Amino acid sequence: MSRFFSDKFASLTPYTPGEQPKERQYVKLNTNESPFAPSVSVLEAVQKECGKLQLYSDPECVALRRELAAVYGVTPQQVIVTNGSDEILNFAFMAFADAKHPLAFADITYGFYPVFAQLNGIPYEEIPLKEDFSMDPSDYIGIGKTVVIANPNAPTGMAMPLTDIERILQSNPDNVVIVDEAYVDFGGESAVSLVDRYENLLVTQTFSKSRSMAGARLGFGIGNEKLIADLNTIRYSTNPYNVNRMTEAAGVAALKDNAYYMENCRTIMANRAYTTEALLAMNFEVLPSVTNFIFAKSSELDGEYLYRTLKDMGILVRHFTKPRIRDYIRITIGTKDQMDVLLDAFREIRKENSK
Amino acid sequence: MSRFFSDKFASLTPYTPGEQPKERQYVKLNTNESPFAPSVSVLEAVQKECGKLQLYSDPECVALRRELAAVYGVTPQQVIVTNGSDEILNFAFMAFADAKHPLAFADITYGFYPVFAQLNGIPYEEIPLKEDFSMDPSDYIGIGKTVVIANPNAPTGMAMPLTDIERILQSNPDNVVIVDEAYVDFGGESAVSLVDRYENLLVTQTFSKSRSMAGARLGFGIGNEKLIADLNTIRYSTNPYNVNRMTEAAGVAALKDNAYYMENCRTIMANRAYTTEALLAMNFEVLPSVTNFIFAKSSELDGEYLYRTLKDMGILVRHFTKPRIRDYIRITIGTKDQMDVLLDAFREIRKENSK
Repeated sequence: MSRFFSDKFASLTPYTPGEQPKERQYVKLNTNESPFAPSVSVLEAVQKECGKLQLYSDPECVALRRELAAVYGVTPQQVIVTNGSDEILNFAFMAFADAKHPLAFADITYGFYPVFAQLNGIPYEEIPLKEDFSMDPSDYIGIGKTVVIANPNAPTGMAMPLTDIERILQSNPDNVVIVDEAYVDFGGESAVSLVDRYENLLVTQTFSKSRSMAGARLGFGIGNEKLIADLNTIRYSTNPYNVNRMTEAAGVAALKDNAYYMENCRTIMANRAYTTEALLAMNFEVLPSVTNFIFAKSSELDGEYLYRTLKDMGILVRHFTKPRIRDYIRITIGTKDQMDVLLDAFREIRKENSK
Repeated sequence: MSRFFSDKFASLTPYTPGEQPKERQYVKLNTNESPFAPSVSVLEAVQKECGKLQLYSDPECVALRRELAAVYGVTPQQVIVTNGSDEILNFAFMAFADAKHPLAFADITYGFYPVFAQLNGIPYEEIPLKEDFSMDPSDYIGIGKTVVIANPNAPTGMAMPLTDIERILQSNPDNVVIVDEAYVDFGGESAVSLVDRYENLLVTQTFSKSRSMAGARLGFGIGNEKLIADLNTIRYSTNPYNVNRMTEAAGVAALKDNAYYMENCRTIMANRAYTTEALLAMNFEVLPSVTNFIFAKSSELDGEYLYRTLKDMGILVRHFTKPRIRDYIRITIGTKDQMDVLLDAFREIRKENSK
């Protein structure tokens, strides 16, 4: 730290992204990327845009917001687009939480929430998940705080039913409820259908997972027009050109090719079922996932050992050191071939350890 | 504003970007974009990257930082890259200014500075430029505040000599001096040469102007390692993947093609001299610019009238309503053909008005 760094941030601990090693080619199952490349029309759209890179992007992102509105059955005024969904989450924390409106979120959830809270000096309460890693909706009923729910949750992969989300919305009419749906396309129920009924609902999503665009950085938020206008006040005071030309073009093309991406999601869901079954047969506990990853624990081998051994074998998964979940590893669901490489590795590790 | 919006931002007035109209094809001289397309190798680099969009970008941007370090004669640890230079400016304001370290910048300068200050709740002092629109270095000597200097300045186009920057750095050893060099490649003197000598110096630049990448969003900061580490603490707490894959690849390719871009800068400087001379002959005052724009005032016609009349004629320039500069228009320097279109328009307007 330099001696010039503001005291405000002296104790800030940044988010640690999943490792992106460059020294070796891994079977990469650690950051929940899609194993499928973007569709050809995305590539064509980006290529076409490249010749115009000397011109600023459209700060209103009209074309992309129009397309999102059409796909999600809302109006363009109910949509904001951002440089990845981390940015919409940060904007939402800034806009709708402060000392008078502290935050509430789960103890086991997306690790960026406490970082955003600390960054913005917002008090927060971490509410423990139940023993089975599900969220107890009653913990949030009438809590009177700005609520953030990753639904489905990460790294557990488990979802809360929409009826519970609705009860939380109804019982906290003076607070915004942020529903982070980064993984919703793999079997979850989206709360977008509720935005016209609840003025306190903000839904966030990303193109990083289901739409194969983690490297393009595109997130979005859907809520009622006034919430979106507030978020735009933050956006225009931070980075009005936050979404670049190439990413906007890619996003529009991806939405027009929605069928391709939703088919990929179904493939991943099938591979998830296949992997889960195989792991159960190898004495793993696997939490019931509706995402493109599974959170699994071996009854024989501990999480860190598995993570390290797999890494030595050329397979990256994610391991967290938080006490409640240190026995687990989070495995991204890739292609069937990738899953077979992983399952073979587990078979080998178990054989080694049963000697 | 929704009833959920944090009081902190209730009076926040966002930045207003230059207009980007879609209804008509204008000769666009209002947002200081380059008239030249990016080099072919940039297009090729982006195309190559597109097939890997499903994978996250490198949060460390190693390749790009290495290339920047080589071009600017610093180490990669002295470089941070961001989603446009607005983002590095916002990060720097967050990191190095607060209630105890208020900001000081000119009254006529980049309009985003007061917005960033308000966004982050940082007190600021706006110091009037001199009558001739130059900055008086003595206003900043020993001021004991976090100083922000656009050098060259916008919208005036005028620069402060590096020797004065150095005096400001020396006399404020306990405060960071941020030198915003968005326009430095058009004839300015960069302070990058001073980063090894002054631990309180942060230089920011952008690929938007001289490197034809406004639509790709790429900015960077150069300073001593500790300052850069602080900025990374903010970056990793905000958006670790702030620079997407395509933009990083484009940036690396553009730096390898540096000669092409620097040649374009020389062409723009020649067109600037040509335009300035023609305007002086038409009774304009033109401030001495070392940027890719000129700030000019007609002794016959007022700024708003000129802006509106040009817009009707299909030419966009930028007009500001601040009292001190409302008689001026800011004109981006484009190709010689574009400048001739503009100069012909001025001739026509003057003829119309002399009837």
